[in-house]
Amino acid sequence: MRDPATAGFTLNQTMLRIRDPEASVAFYRDVLGFTLLHKLDVAPAKFSLYFLALMREGETLPDDPAERLRLVFSRETTLELTHNWGTESDPDFAGYHNGNAEPRGFGHLGISVPDVAAACARFEQMGVPFVKRPDEGMMKGIAFIQDPDGYWIEILSPNGMAAMLGGR
Amino acid sequence: MRDPATAGFTLNQTMLRIRDPEASVAFYRDVLGFTLLHKLDVAPAKFSLYFLALMREGETLPDDPAERLRLVFSRETTLELTHNWGTESDPDFAGYHNGNAEPRGFGHLGISVPDVAAACARFEQMGVPFVKRPDEGMMKGIAFIQDPDGYWIEILSPNGMAAMLGGR
Repeated sequence: MRDPATAGFTLNQTMLRIRDPEASVAFYRDVLGFTLLHKLDVAPAKFSLYFLALMREGETLPDDPAERLRLVFSRETTLELTHNWGTESDPDFAGYHNGNAEPRGFGHLGISVPDVAAACARFEQMGVPFVKRPDEGMMKGIAFIQDPDGYWIEILSPNGMAAMLGGR
Repeated sequence: MRDPATAGFTLNQTMLRIRDPEASVAFYRDVLGFTLLHKLDVAPAKFSLYFLALMREGETLPDDPAERLRLVFSRETTLELTHNWGTESDPDFAGYHNGNAEPRGFGHLGISVPDVAAACARFEQMGVPFVKRPDEGMMKGIAFIQDPDGYWIEILSPNGMAAMLGGR
């Protein structure tokens, strides 16, 4: 039984650090269909936050700034990209760690799509790097691509997963 | 304009590796109110996946296994916890990396709650470790707690964020 004290708790965000917001916002918008909901500059600490979401069909973005902020911080689920100023042009910046080599931790984001093959054919055309194509490896029908920082993004479909895991 | 080729794309999952599923599932369930939607054992590769979600008010879990799998893999948004068998009892296992010390990358999950102070008072009572209490630091009204592997979880409220960031 869920503790009533947790009523209204929502998994709202996953935060990843990014080197270059121009590249990352373009990737999540153009390749994956995300909408940039809000950008927040925190000048004293020299970083900016980019809040993005994959809007649902028919979902709209409120014009009113306060309403929009409430959506950004209540919605399931936003991707929060953190840009520490200057990394995009710093030749000494080594890049961020995607969590899949040592030391491991974070694994990936997963995007559910209607048709993995069609989605991946399009990614391929767009020059998106693959960690695993849908027809490679053990888990057929699942792919992993990489964002501009090298974070892994699993591409899966609800019907494909249900079929693979023994559903109808 | 969103590319129509991305229609139906959904941010479905965030995957984190965990050392001890008993501790982590208990934490996400009892402290944060998550429901375990599905457990998947991948015996050939000696790992298990735990899919959890913060169910919306009135949301129900289908009894039919295939329907349930389709929900798990289409829902915004599930938390996928990966347990590589044996880590929980391996004295040589150094633990997972939360991304907030070098090498940095992943930052945190964020849980939106109706009342940050009330939520944090309860976490405090339950002995949950804090990275930052709501009244500490620059960003009043936001807290960071840690899960059993040390991953950071931001605790925020939509109204608090809108007020802080200049909304009404």
